[in-house]
Amino acid sequence: MVHVLIIGAAGMVGHKLARHITQDGSLNGRALTKLSLVDVVEPPVPANAPQDTICRACDFSLEGEAEQLVASRPDVIFHLAAIVSGEAEVETDKGYRINLDGTRRLFEAIRALGEGYCPRVVFTSSIAVFGAPFPDPIPDDFLPAPLTSYGAQKAMSELLLADFSRKGFLDGIGIRLPTIVVRPGKPNKAASGFFSGIIREPLNGQEAVLPVADDVLHWMASPRAAAGFLIHAAGLDGETVGPRRNMTMPGLAVTVAEEIETLRRFGGEKAVKLIRRERDPLVEKIVAGWPRGFDPARALALGFKADESFDAIVQTYIEEEGITL
Amino acid sequence: MVHVLIIGAAGMVGHKLARHITQDGSLNGRALTKLSLVDVVEPPVPANAPQDTICRACDFSLEGEAEQLVASRPDVIFHLAAIVSGEAEVETDKGYRINLDGTRRLFEAIRALGEGYCPRVVFTSSIAVFGAPFPDPIPDDFLPAPLTSYGAQKAMSELLLADFSRKGFLDGIGIRLPTIVVRPGKPNKAASGFFSGIIREPLNGQEAVLPVADDVLHWMASPRAAAGFLIHAAGLDGETVGPRRNMTMPGLAVTVAEEIETLRRFGGEKAVKLIRRERDPLVEKIVAGWPRGFDPARALALGFKADESFDAIVQTYIEEEGITL
Repeated sequence: MVHVLIIGAAGMVGHKLARHITQDGSLNGRALTKLSLVDVVEPPVPANAPQDTICRACDFSLEGEAEQLVASRPDVIFHLAAIVSGEAEVETDKGYRINLDGTRRLFEAIRALGEGYCPRVVFTSSIAVFGAPFPDPIPDDFLPAPLTSYGAQKAMSELLLADFSRKGFLDGIGIRLPTIVVRPGKPNKAASGFFSGIIREPLNGQEAVLPVADDVLHWMASPRAAAGFLIHAAGLDGETVGPRRNMTMPGLAVTVAEEIETLRRFGGEKAVKLIRRERDPLVEKIVAGWPRGFDPARALALGFKADESFDAIVQTYIEEEGITL
Repeated sequence: MVHVLIIGAAGMVGHKLARHITQDGSLNGRALTKLSLVDVVEPPVPANAPQDTICRACDFSLEGEAEQLVASRPDVIFHLAAIVSGEAEVETDKGYRINLDGTRRLFEAIRALGEGYCPRVVFTSSIAVFGAPFPDPIPDDFLPAPLTSYGAQKAMSELLLADFSRKGFLDGIGIRLPTIVVRPGKPNKAASGFFSGIIREPLNGQEAVLPVADDVLHWMASPRAAAGFLIHAAGLDGETVGPRRNMTMPGLAVTVAEEIETLRRFGGEKAVKLIRRERDPLVEKIVAGWPRGFDPARALALGFKADESFDAIVQTYIEEEGITL
């Protein structure tokens, strides 16, 4: 019997996670008896949700909200809520308020309940905690030196998660997600958007702009793999993990050229021809500051599983989104 | 012409720093025209202080205090104020309030002034940002994974310092101090206190307890070297330092046995006999989790200078404190 709370449940990964858990009807072998889904917009009720499911719109970072969210003492809390990278960079105060203070309020609300309440908290961090220059691949004990406010806020939250876990206030696991590819839906303004766009748009018969060179290498995972990481993190034994509660998730180091070859296999030459090369120096500069590849030895040893291949990532996308080729 | 603010000026290192600056009458070649010294107790006025010197007791972490401290727009701010390791571990809220929130309020107060105000902020961090297991020596790009709340608060403050520096809100340098040896004055309750105590007490004809084995290795710097690090950090060119604004200071990796040999040279056999060996499993466990040695390549390349030898550290102590052997 497990009561699960997902904060950020209307986002792409949060929604996939909720669907996976409700489809299974359980979380790591424990029957799902209660599900609370919250986000700034009301999350949809997933198919097969347990009867005791609450979907609610709220800003978890506002005073008093976190206390309300944890008052019913969920056993597992997935914390996926965040202001994204681009917005946190421009809106400094908003980024710190939500990504750092909101996270801290949540952790403090859990701590305040006390009386032996020590839920598993799975926190989505990001490879944005790293900033150039890097070794290649980046080992697990490499310095987080972010070059964005978003990365700084995630790295600070990681430290708080580890300290509060060490002190027994909560039982946290922080997972640094790779860039999620192929993101379904419309193109977004994220600088990393083209990694998805050059697959998604051509498979839908639409043009996609490629703003960087074909040899650009990036660390990727599918939405399905991301949901899998979250579920696996929820079941880890804290003692086995030890005091270093944050870790980089396994991904695939894929070049743009490899993405295009996969696109060719699934969509043929006509799909590849829909990619328009138009270099964007700003995007190229941002991408140059991102990590390329990792050696996520700890996560692999703890049983986290990356996608098998970029072909498998695209196959998953086609299946999950019901794309007709 | 330089206006200097020292927060934490009544502490051992803050006081040494104030004395060095007032003795020189300048900071890195700029004439000292104004000096503001604050701490929770009113700091003493150093000899040769400029006429425009303010010594004030205040808790910099309370609402409105930081705004008042920076209102006169000091050019260089030394931020040394902190709840120490042991207290921050037991008093979790107090530690976060002062070591993290206080630091953040200070940084926000600087940012809020705006209109091109971008002072050099020298922040004293600590090697407590690192937690076992370590490589030996620890390189500059090693993961901060603290095993104390104090270390977590320092590591979080480092991230904020770097992010606010990158965004041009302030011009920060964070320096991770080694353990300061020989601390003058009375024995304190710090677990690291014996590294000073086994020199200080025997040179004063008093018994000192040694709670660990003779082969324990530790990273040390003299109070004079620490003041030198702070002054050097105040003069660094931010562009040269780049976005990684926090760095480990050079120190000496010294064993307890080497300390004792130095004591023998200065105080003779009678001093060495005043060391009483009484192993303390708790202290031994804490010490085992501490870093032993570093490869502080960046700090050395930027011109920070360690003490020459442990003999030189003890020589400095004897001179500065006027010890009669």
